[in-house]
Amino acid sequence: PEGFGDLDRTAIDTARVLAMEAVQQAGNGHPGTAMSMAPAAYLLFQRWLRHDPTDPQWVARDRFVLSMGHSSLTLYVQLYLSGYGLELDDLRALRTWGSLTPGHPEVNHTPGVETTTGPLGQGVGNAVGMAMAARRERGLLDPDAPEGESLFDHTVWAFCSDGDLEEGVSGEASSLAGTQRLGNLVLVYDDNKISIEDDTTVAFTEDVGKRYEAYGWHVQHVDDGEDLAALDAALAAAKAETRRPSIIVLRTIIGWPAPNKQNTGASHGSALGEDEVRATKEILGFDPSTSFDVDASVLAHARKVVDRGRSAHAEWQERFTAWQQANPGGAALLERMTTRTLPDGWAEQLPSWPADEKGVATRKASGEVLAALYPALPELWGGSADLAESNNTAVKGEPSFLPADRQTKTWSGGPYGRTLHFGVREHAMGAVMNGIALHGGTRVYGGTFLTFSDYMRGAVRLAALMQLPVTYVWTHDSIGLGEDGPTHQPIEHLAALRAIPGLDVVRPADANEVAVAWRTILEHNDRPAGLALSRQNLPVFDRSQVASAEGTARGAYVLAEASSGAPQVILLGTGSEVQIAMAAREQLEADGIPTRVVSVPCVEWFAAQDRAYREEVLPRTVRARVSVEAGIPQGWRDFVGDAGRIVGIDHYGASAAYGVLYEKFGFTAEAVVAAARESI
Amino acid sequence: PEGFGDLDRTAIDTARVLAMEAVQQAGNGHPGTAMSMAPAAYLLFQRWLRHDPTDPQWVARDRFVLSMGHSSLTLYVQLYLSGYGLELDDLRALRTWGSLTPGHPEVNHTPGVETTTGPLGQGVGNAVGMAMAARRERGLLDPDAPEGESLFDHTVWAFCSDGDLEEGVSGEASSLAGTQRLGNLVLVYDDNKISIEDDTTVAFTEDVGKRYEAYGWHVQHVDDGEDLAALDAALAAAKAETRRPSIIVLRTIIGWPAPNKQNTGASHGSALGEDEVRATKEILGFDPSTSFDVDASVLAHARKVVDRGRSAHAEWQERFTAWQQANPGGAALLERMTTRTLPDGWAEQLPSWPADEKGVATRKASGEVLAALYPALPELWGGSADLAESNNTAVKGEPSFLPADRQTKTWSGGPYGRTLHFGVREHAMGAVMNGIALHGGTRVYGGTFLTFSDYMRGAVRLAALMQLPVTYVWTHDSIGLGEDGPTHQPIEHLAALRAIPGLDVVRPADANEVAVAWRTILEHNDRPAGLALSRQNLPVFDRSQVASAEGTARGAYVLAEASSGAPQVILLGTGSEVQIAMAAREQLEADGIPTRVVSVPCVEWFAAQDRAYREEVLPRTVRARVSVEAGIPQGWRDFVGDAGRIVGIDHYGASAAYGVLYEKFGFTAEAVVAAARESI
Repeated sequence: PEGFGDLDRTAIDTARVLAMEAVQQAGNGHPGTAMSMAPAAYLLFQRWLRHDPTDPQWVARDRFVLSMGHSSLTLYVQLYLSGYGLELDDLRALRTWGSLTPGHPEVNHTPGVETTTGPLGQGVGNAVGMAMAARRERGLLDPDAPEGESLFDHTVWAFCSDGDLEEGVSGEASSLAGTQRLGNLVLVYDDNKISIEDDTTVAFTEDVGKRYEAYGWHVQHVDDGEDLAALDAALAAAKAETRRPSIIVLRTIIGWPAPNKQNTGASHGSALGEDEVRATKEILGFDPSTSFDVDASVLAHARKVVDRGRSAHAEWQERFTAWQQANPGGAALLERMTTRTLPDGWAEQLPSWPADEKGVATRKASGEVLAALYPALPELWGGSADLAESNNTAVKGEPSFLPADRQTKTWSGGPYGRTLHFGVREHAMGAVMNGIALHGGTRVYGGTFLTFSDYMRGAVRLAALMQLPVTYVWTHDSIGLGEDGPTHQPIEHLAALRAIPGLDVVRPADANEVAVAWRTILEHNDRPAGLALSRQNLPVFDRSQVASAEGTARGAYVLAEASSGAPQVILLGTGSEVQIAMAAREQLEADGIPTRVVSVPCVEWFAAQDRAYREEVLPRTVRARVSVEAGIPQGWRDFVGDAGRIVGIDHYGASAAYGVLYEKFGFTAEAVVAAARESI
Repeated sequence: PEGFGDLDRTAIDTARVLAMEAVQQAGNGHPGTAMSMAPAAYLLFQRWLRHDPTDPQWVARDRFVLSMGHSSLTLYVQLYLSGYGLELDDLRALRTWGSLTPGHPEVNHTPGVETTTGPLGQGVGNAVGMAMAARRERGLLDPDAPEGESLFDHTVWAFCSDGDLEEGVSGEASSLAGTQRLGNLVLVYDDNKISIEDDTTVAFTEDVGKRYEAYGWHVQHVDDGEDLAALDAALAAAKAETRRPSIIVLRTIIGWPAPNKQNTGASHGSALGEDEVRATKEILGFDPSTSFDVDASVLAHARKVVDRGRSAHAEWQERFTAWQQANPGGAALLERMTTRTLPDGWAEQLPSWPADEKGVATRKASGEVLAALYPALPELWGGSADLAESNNTAVKGEPSFLPADRQTKTWSGGPYGRTLHFGVREHAMGAVMNGIALHGGTRVYGGTFLTFSDYMRGAVRLAALMQLPVTYVWTHDSIGLGEDGPTHQPIEHLAALRAIPGLDVVRPADANEVAVAWRTILEHNDRPAGLALSRQNLPVFDRSQVASAEGTARGAYVLAEASSGAPQVILLGTGSEVQIAMAAREQLEADGIPTRVVSVPCVEWFAAQDRAYREEVLPRTVRARVSVEAGIPQGWRDFVGDAGRIVGIDHYGASAAYGVLYEKFGFTAEAVVAAARESI
């Protein structure tokens, strides 16, 4: 490419050498792709990525996603060469305890890393989400600027591998990106035809370019990963294409130019070995007797990207300051979004519900909460994996987030709209939500049936690992779903989701708990939460007779105290089963057994309370305890203890009306009363 | 189509009417697709599907998969019209407790239903698996027959919807089917452009036909779902194409011909309402004043398919008897496969390992078990989602299951090969494994890293729900994976998998436990199992000093008794942590504390033991207990009780050598000793 010289070529070869050396030093790792993708990575970081290495959080920066996280060195070496603060010692410490260079890149750990990748396909979904967030952000802050001229226009660049594109999640996300016409997204596919089982012919023979054409993408082919001019031209054309997402199918030879290990599965995930490293360095004209030995002039040349970045940033800053002055409202919103601060008085918008025996489904209450909050919180948006009406995730009257020509008679909107349509793609929804949160600014939620949390689990785990504040609206949260039967009835899901470290699972017992639950979730900026909401109506408790729903925020609270004030037995329930505990309490009290009911909307929030509060709610002296939840017993022993009883279900459900199922499967006040008597 | 007459046309309209009526009767359900796919379904069941409704288990039958399980009436009505034993009363009982017509079709529940569907995309994966199993079965029994002439040649037909094709799992499976050149697979895609959120333009605009061309499929378009002649010709061409899987993109109008609700999301998942049902019946020339009123001559005409099926079956049976006589070995194998009976003496092939401090990784032991069993169990086959070497799932010298032209320098094989290459597609692997098991005959296993069980969870749950004997080889089962870091280190997965009802999670402590674990798993025909296996070497216990590994089959057993015979504390461990319990025992015994170690390879198997055995292993009198497992504590309270202690990890791992991680995260003999002292 124009302006590229010998120092650049040496820098690229330096990247290859460092990748080999770092893996060799660690004794394990993934050298091959970092070697063959070094030209593309260097070209991107030096010429195309708009970034300021001295401010990795610059709000207008382009984003870079390395979907093939195993090739973390592809990124680490560019962060080193670009002056993000990573140094040779960090590369030397690859894959060791406490280093800045863990096996897979980790966001919030290494400056310049935009997302945690490794589980394949996720990064593609993250990149799609980032591109969507960028468009929404522009719509919130600067909708009228001509295309390409907004302060908030930026590009999302992602690298991905064969494995990424074999995973279904990337296909889902890419199809969605095509529908959304994400012109601000560029994907470089490292088409090396090698995966861990070597030649991909045994498993992956499709025409990827054609598949992406089918998705509506702009597809380019570069037949040689070493052809910098061709790649540069392709990146230019990709960036110039603003009506469709772009993919560049880049043919590379993994491990190039290692004389024996290039183009082999062995170079994917193992150190090359000292002899091969030496031979490769000789081929590249590097001194095989030294290691981690970077030519100072090469490094200085590469790090000129810092000056270019600073100057682009400064130029932007000037325009930005002018924009702030001209748009005080937008500036305040951006400030709030960037820092994830909620506006004063926002929580006053939350609805409350009067006591009501017939009640309301908690999914419906959730929809009413969202509708109430929408005016106060423009950063809040979301949608569903094709279950908008069931999940109550679409706020009436709000525009859909859609290219103008994708509107339908049911959904109007535009490119800056607010209601997301993920399609029947739960896994991509999760990965896209992560990308939106990683991009920053907006606050996203996404809905599906609780049972299909299984489909998105790979992405949910990463949200928890990355501590991203995304919210899952998981409705139809038990056998209470009824007639759709066992495939659609979650049984094990509450336990299985509580198992994920760092995820809050919130199952409100009535509409007023829903409001407090949403408030509490939105007050957290450091973790994902999943709401488990009922399909069926749940009575709204008479809060003049029982405790305030404020207790929801503490995870568990005494909803109804024993009449004597000294409970002989404690009944714990969650969600739709709290009403059963309340009915059981009535019977027990009538029989002279003082009974306390504890509502447990969120195990994780309760665990975070101090010991005194926990003891107050569940005094150790009261050993007679019964839990009731329409899910597997797993986990409840921690609450009920050796003397307690667990009313649960340890098998699959059935297709019938929900009332029938509650009876047949023993979720009745009588069953809870019997369990209480046993426990006493 | 030739031979189709008025009675056939009326039968098709009868199917539409019954679908409307059944949903109206139930008050909820999915009428729309059953109405618009009635022509295709009737055509298939009457003319193309080779089946004998009087013997739904006929081994040579074609298979039919309804991937869009919500449209269960598409299938139920054809089962009724084809004489499978479903009658009008069953349709009347749609979606009610105990009926043969649950909301989504359930295998082993309703004769003629080949797989449980509902979670979208899974049926496509099942169909791909069935087609693969059919090829493998032919290879085992009749490899030399000319194409199309084997007794075991049959076709897998599947219907799928927009939602199915939006899900990534179907894309993964379809890409695999293209690579495998599954000419015995025909997919009919109901391209109605409507999903729950109505017009799919908001979420799904890709060119599906082109995408399937990219996968290497034979793609046909039929522009009108009511054009029986065109559809018939397309089905003929699809069946005739034996070198590639076929997809027919069939344009239909959902809910056709309901005057107001056709072509709407409303007709997808709700009863049409009495007025609309009446109006539709009038359009179709049916009497709106009656319901479930089927013309006897129409039914008699449709049920002639029974005679045709019986006669095809009888003809086949004659050839089959001749084959049995000519191929006694094959006949015996088929009998064994059909009944899932293991051959005499097979378990004698299992390897055993001498005591060895340095030890062997349990994943490696698993590979040795497979290699030892392969000669005795030709029905056993499997592979990995691109991690063959890591999962130890490929037996050396065995041919790969591949079209001949897909062989590589690493993998030789052929269409009847044994080693499966799933590619980086865990979810499809799970769905395909389900299809293979549903097809019957062979016994399949599939491997990936334990952490990626998350990606396949949707399929694992269905395996458990369907009670399918598939085996997951989940290796790298803890932070013991080491340098690849937190994205690759399972923390919550053991608990989250144990949560799934009907799944056995098996985590052997040493190589000899691996052998007994595999034996026990293969002896079960009614459930899936997942092996959790170590990356790192584990010592092989000296079985002359500790109990026999036979105890593995009981789920938990006393590995080492307290020296006094009367334990003061019990240490429970699983997998790689049992050695830590053993080391802790040594320290405790040295300090005069009689200590028992219980190895707990499978919680589910232990739960199935009688009370006396469980009491023997974990006597209630010994309340001092410590569990140690490199996973979250969830679930262990049931074993250790109120007085017990749990040594676990409730946060994510890190990238470092595994020895460092065990130290840093407190998985040491010292930590277990300290916990034991606390518990005492």
